Amino acid sequence: MLIQWFKRLTASPKARLAYLVGLLVFFTGALFLRAKEVAETAVEEGQEMAGSAVDSVATHIFQWFGPFRDPEFDTFERICLIIVVAIAIAGLLYALMLVKQVREADQGTPKMQEVASAVREGAMAYLTAQFRKIGPLIIVITLVLFFTTQGAAAFKYGRAVSFIVGALFSWLVGYVGMRLATIGNLRVAAAAKHSYGLAMQLGYRTGTITGMLTDGLGLLGGTMIFLVYGTHAYEALLGFGFGGTLLALFMRVGGGIYTKAADVGADLVGKIEKDIPEDDPRNAATIADNVGDNVGDCAGMASDIFESYEVTIVAAMILGLATFGHKGVLFPLLVRAIGVVASIISTYTVKAGPNDTSDTALKSVHRGFWIGSVLSVLGFLVLGFFYLRFDGTILANMAHSGEAFPGGNPNALPWIFNFGIPGLDMRPAITCLIGVFLAVALNKVTSYYTHTSHSPVQGLAKNCTTGHATNIIEGFAVGYESTVSTLIILATAIFLSVLVYTGTSPMFIAYGVAMAGIGLLTLTGNTISMDVFGPVADNANGIGEMGFDKDEMEANEPGSYQRARQILADLDAVGNTTKAETKGIAIGSAVIAAVSLFASFIAVLAVGGEDKIAEMTLEQYNEHSALLSVADSKVLIGLLIGGAVPFLFSSSLIRAVGRAAYYIVKECRIQFRDAEIWAGKKKPDYGRVVDICTSTAQKELIGPALLAIAAPLTVGLLLGPYAMGGFLAGMIVVGQLLAVFMANAGGAWDNAKKLIEDGVYGGKGSEAHKAAVTGDTVGDPLKDTAGPAINPLIKVMNMVSLLLLGVVTSINLSTGTGSKALGAVLAVICIAAIVWGVVQSKRETPGLTEE
Amino acid sequence: MLIQWFKRLTASPKARLAYLVGLLVFFTGALFLRAKEVAETAVEEGQEMAGSAVDSVATHIFQWFGPFRDPEFDTFERICLIIVVAIAIAGLLYALMLVKQVREADQGTPKMQEVASAVREGAMAYLTAQFRKIGPLIIVITLVLFFTTQGAAAFKYGRAVSFIVGALFSWLVGYVGMRLATIGNLRVAAAAKHSYGLAMQLGYRTGTITGMLTDGLGLLGGTMIFLVYGTHAYEALLGFGFGGTLLALFMRVGGGIYTKAADVGADLVGKIEKDIPEDDPRNAATIADNVGDNVGDCAGMASDIFESYEVTIVAAMILGLATFGHKGVLFPLLVRAIGVVASIISTYTVKAGPNDTSDTALKSVHRGFWIGSVLSVLGFLVLGFFYLRFDGTILANMAHSGEAFPGGNPNALPWIFNFGIPGLDMRPAITCLIGVFLAVALNKVTSYYTHTSHSPVQGLAKNCTTGHATNIIEGFAVGYESTVSTLIILATAIFLSVLVYTGTSPMFIAYGVAMAGIGLLTLTGNTISMDVFGPVADNANGIGEMGFDKDEMEANEPGSYQRARQILADLDAVGNTTKAETKGIAIGSAVIAAVSLFASFIAVLAVGGEDKIAEMTLEQYNEHSALLSVADSKVLIGLLIGGAVPFLFSSSLIRAVGRAAYYIVKECRIQFRDAEIWAGKKKPDYGRVVDICTSTAQKELIGPALLAIAAPLTVGLLLGPYAMGGFLAGMIVVGQLLAVFMANAGGAWDNAKKLIEDGVYGGKGSEAHKAAVTGDTVGDPLKDTAGPAINPLIKVMNMVSLLLLGVVTSINLSTGTGSKALGAVLAVICIAAIVWGVVQSKRETPGLTEE
Repeated sequence: MLIQWFKRLTASPKARLAYLVGLLVFFTGALFLRAKEVAETAVEEGQEMAGSAVDSVATHIFQWFGPFRDPEFDTFERICLIIVVAIAIAGLLYALMLVKQVREADQGTPKMQEVASAVREGAMAYLTAQFRKIGPLIIVITLVLFFTTQGAAAFKYGRAVSFIVGALFSWLVGYVGMRLATIGNLRVAAAAKHSYGLAMQLGYRTGTITGMLTDGLGLLGGTMIFLVYGTHAYEALLGFGFGGTLLALFMRVGGGIYTKAADVGADLVGKIEKDIPEDDPRNAATIADNVGDNVGDCAGMASDIFESYEVTIVAAMILGLATFGHKGVLFPLLVRAIGVVASIISTYTVKAGPNDTSDTALKSVHRGFWIGSVLSVLGFLVLGFFYLRFDGTILANMAHSGEAFPGGNPNALPWIFNFGIPGLDMRPAITCLIGVFLAVALNKVTSYYTHTSHSPVQGLAKNCTTGHATNIIEGFAVGYESTVSTLIILATAIFLSVLVYTGTSPMFIAYGVAMAGIGLLTLTGNTISMDVFGPVADNANGIGEMGFDKDEMEANEPGSYQRARQILADLDAVGNTTKAETKGIAIGSAVIAAVSLFASFIAVLAVGGEDKIAEMTLEQYNEHSALLSVADSKVLIGLLIGGAVPFLFSSSLIRAVGRAAYYIVKECRIQFRDAEIWAGKKKPDYGRVVDICTSTAQKELIGPALLAIAAPLTVGLLLGPYAMGGFLAGMIVVGQLLAVFMANAGGAWDNAKKLIEDGVYGGKGSEAHKAAVTGDTVGDPLKDTAGPAINPLIKVMNMVSLLLLGVVTSINLSTGTGSKALGAVLAVICIAAIVWGVVQSKRETPGLTEE
Repeated sequence: MLIQWFKRLTASPKARLAYLVGLLVFFTGALFLRAKEVAETAVEEGQEMAGSAVDSVATHIFQWFGPFRDPEFDTFERICLIIVVAIAIAGLLYALMLVKQVREADQGTPKMQEVASAVREGAMAYLTAQFRKIGPLIIVITLVLFFTTQGAAAFKYGRAVSFIVGALFSWLVGYVGMRLATIGNLRVAAAAKHSYGLAMQLGYRTGTITGMLTDGLGLLGGTMIFLVYGTHAYEALLGFGFGGTLLALFMRVGGGIYTKAADVGADLVGKIEKDIPEDDPRNAATIADNVGDNVGDCAGMASDIFESYEVTIVAAMILGLATFGHKGVLFPLLVRAIGVVASIISTYTVKAGPNDTSDTALKSVHRGFWIGSVLSVLGFLVLGFFYLRFDGTILANMAHSGEAFPGGNPNALPWIFNFGIPGLDMRPAITCLIGVFLAVALNKVTSYYTHTSHSPVQGLAKNCTTGHATNIIEGFAVGYESTVSTLIILATAIFLSVLVYTGTSPMFIAYGVAMAGIGLLTLTGNTISMDVFGPVADNANGIGEMGFDKDEMEANEPGSYQRARQILADLDAVGNTTKAETKGIAIGSAVIAAVSLFASFIAVLAVGGEDKIAEMTLEQYNEHSALLSVADSKVLIGLLIGGAVPFLFSSSLIRAVGRAAYYIVKECRIQFRDAEIWAGKKKPDYGRVVDICTSTAQKELIGPALLAIAAPLTVGLLLGPYAMGGFLAGMIVVGQLLAVFMANAGGAWDNAKKLIEDGVYGGKGSEAHKAAVTGDTVGDPLKDTAGPAINPLIKVMNMVSLLLLGVVTSINLSTGTGSKALGAVLAVICIAAIVWGVVQSKRETPGLTEE
């Protein structure tokens, strides 16, 4: 009944926006109405805390808009904060400007518009269904967060509101990215009639809109929370991060199932059963297939990167406070602001003239990335040089100034960290630099294992000549090896952070890792531009194929059809390359973010609740981190189970793709029976296929989502909070290895097929090609569904553990001091939820060929 | 030059045995010649230790044949020890009796003998080459062990000798198992002419010989070392365990590459290129293919289980000493002895009469297993009841009696652990019971995921109808899920041990896990009988196919040919079932053994060297285990790298199979060019193919072996001993998950093919069958090469870490106090070795179809 009512309530896009904004207004309003009272309570509580924590150096008493009141912050810092907000808004305005540019571009012929609008229609149908599923869940989680948050009432409201904001932003990035992509693809196709440069520039700018939205919203959210909550910002930031990751998980999983189910379904019913070409408009699943590209590569990827962007800033700010005090919190925000400026400048330099070709266009994109990198590296080195000064007053205010420097002496840093200037500490800036190098290294490795120009893919293509099996076997070898290489690079980056912070406590090392994450994602604007450019160019090519009127174009200008088609094909190829290059960063960011979140987890564990984190002493940190020893059997069990989760999750997703594809095939068959549709006289009901496709994808989402939330909770409740820590560690290690294996093996199989289709080893139709197609099909659900979904999974589980740590510590059956009966009941519910999810995922995949 | 000389020296089997025995005599002789002097030094050193470790309750002063001199041991225990030795010898005599039975059985016609002797010839060629490769390495490692062992000279000799003995025993088990299998297969084929029961019984008894050899040698080795070294036995046991695991790694890796390379090579050159049937005697690779079955399933599996059998006893004895003192050490030996008795009785009950069929035969085998289980469970419960009594004197002698019981009170145990009898402590016996249940559960799970009678394999077969890719994709889902199920069972077993030892220190929990391992492998005799029965029956069927003379048999007795062939086919099917059932135990034992070894690692880490383990205090243990926290960045890096190793290892092995197959194809082509061979007039040179096959398999072995030894050392040298601990934990988690995934996915694909070949979905020749063959081929190197080799890999790395811990602690670059320069040099050498190995494994696989 309630669900029905909710469905009616959210029938139109405007109603949905109103719903979210309403939620926001309600909670924000309640917060401000109670502000005075709350503030008083908080101050009292803060004073109590101060009283009880005598051994803690710095006790942060909560004040609203602390940064503008707290004497710790100087005027320079206050100005900086305002500038950061301004930069975030500037980023958003820049995005708005680009939206205008794209919207105003030529929209092509009505026939082209028709194709594009079908895709857009499908995309909207997906979002509607997605929203209906997630909307109620958001209320539930908001309430749970509100009631489980410990500490002052201000934090309860803060976390609940931030959660909604985080979810809203993450959803918005996916929503706008997808919407713009479905607008941009039409304009790119139309521009291709005029010149290569124009089309290329439009496509890239369409991507840049999503990129800048991610940058702008991520920075704005983090900064605003910091402005309101000051050094207590982590209270709300956790909610912000959780909202972002949870939405990203839904977008990734739903999008991943959608895109591959549509792909497989369309191929089975169209190419194989009816023997009609790939993009035949009579096939109701064709549009779903095109929608799938947007859903997976635009919405899923954008949400995912936004979430990494959020989570790294959350981790950096929590650890920043625990290490370098408010400077530690402000520095990552300032670095991010520099990144946004660098992205604005560098993406705008990516231009192409009428005489450009694929090669020069790719060079222009890469030049943009390099300009951005140089600008941001210069920016944060200069910033670090002027801002990272630690004199007597600041050191006195830092909770752990003694542990921050080798031997406790701020002036004893090696020359490379302070250039001989007493009080200067460039280490945070240098760890950012590590992140930038990490981005470059990850791109190179991904490209080595998945590009046609390197030996792994060439070897795969060669193995196709001896059959299906040898191709798959070699793919295993390539995928296994590539995940090891990626992991070695990530381990090296963490190790460099260890080296930079030699002689300090582990928390500083974790801060270094978090700052490396900030560095890694500095150029998020450019990264997403490059990524989204892929599906836009891909779709534009499809629109050209279906929507260009050859006769009319040739009549107007002979040769123009051929030229425009060639331009679109070239753009598609460039898009494939740029899209693939960014994959490495998305994957790498998951581990870096998870490792730094993990340190936050330990910090929270050490003080028994995230509300007391500001009072943590290093002794507490060390004492509790010691209990996370793999020598403890419970931690080891946690580690084992944590390692198993990514396997279970992937198994569910792989099966889900198969099942969803089955329903699509069924619907298409029904529509084909309509003689008018088959004759091409009537437009098939694309929306219905898309809707079925979407709703099954959403249904398949429940099992994995339950797993993500219930698994860490179960381990925590049964074995205690330290086992939950072991669980997280195991999940990070195995998740990373499995995700990269699946992504790269899939990518390599895909490109081996492309290589053969380009004419090597017999080309299309040869036996080798058949083997290559098998490899590509095997790789599809691995690289586009299971692999990428592990990224947000890792972070959702981290976030869930962080947020529920207080509850788990209190009522777990192993060491809890609270109600163990409640713990047992909750554990049983969680296990039942997981088992239910697994049983759902094990329902036998219906044979695809049966009626 | 030296290698040439070594090759000449070990040209004949007798010379090789003489070589090993010579080594043994040399080191044992040296040991006894120096015995008196050494003993005196040891006593002095012991006294020094006692002086320096005042806070340690029990300091064990070393005495030769301690159990017969030390007043701690009572007469009952001394008698028990002698009985254990007698039982071990009885097990070996039982094996000898069975050898006689098998040897005296009918050998069939000369034609059958010819086929069998070709296989035997090949098997011997493999062992010769294997031995040549490993022989010199054994000397080198013996010397390294001798010089790196810390403590008294008695321990240096002890460890070196035990290493050789362990290696020799492990090799012997593989050698005898394979030799007997190649003798038994002929007799089984001949017996099939007479009756089903006779053939079945002969086949099972052939397997029992290897089983009892494993039991007998494992028990004898452990007990003898204990008799000589008493409570200091772990000094030598480490060497014994390392010898066993290292040999097992070589046997598994070499055997795995061999069997699949021969399989793929024979198929490519015979079935595909020449279009001749599978077992055509003109194909020089056919015999290699048959040899491969023995090499992989007999020698590899037997060595591997022997090694698990050894390693669990090593871990149990080390932890037993550290927890319950000498009772803790003696109890696992006594339990093992009970297991051997139970195996002798229960394997002898497996009989079949002339009227038996497949069904009744399988029931007989299962009944044997159940009889054994009941006997041993009863046995160790009764033993526990009488032996596990802890009165005042014994408690006073126990180092950590205070920590052994909840609240420090031996009488405060819950009723189920002492039946209300003060001083009784049944917990060690109960953890053994957990191991028995674990064995049953692992068998069931393996069988569920890989048998044709359950839904996973049936689902795979159905997916074959939609093509190659859907079969592979579903196989991923099945394999992923199965590894999660297996891991949950293992985690539960560990958790039960945690529950049993609630309220005690982690070391007791680890002892519980080790005892579960002892329980798990109690019926090793029966397990190996069932396993080896598989290849024996398989080979017998092949001999029947190639060697039975239809005309002659039908002339003697009409219908006899058909009947005999049917009997062999039935036996083959039974063998496949029993073989598959034992796989679960082999895999499970790896993790249980690794987890308990890992606890030994921590114990050694705690005291800074394994020579001081007897003086360890629980405070030391807790203090050092706290440093193994995943919250420490270095430990986390270790964890990440440890997780990566099984992926790299698997990648190398998968590639190695492809390369080795290529050389086989090349040699076969050359032999086919000989017109006489092609005409069937001349016997092809099977030995040469086998030799090439063997030597390439051995060559491919170097990279993975280097990785196994150098990887933990590198991590330890660069990041310190705690990171090495993290490395081990990561490797155990990922190794287990990956090994089970590959083994079960491969098994499921294999059986899906069998299901289709039995007529489902179109049967042989259908499109579904082709897809099923692709799945089977993909699964082959996963399930028979990479997957099983991870078992010994996990334990070799654990052993290497344990043995080199002293060196690493001293000279590592992170926390070492010794020569860091030496550490750096060693680290560089290790990294170079790994890189060299990886580069070797990345040499491009030569295309199999090129000339």
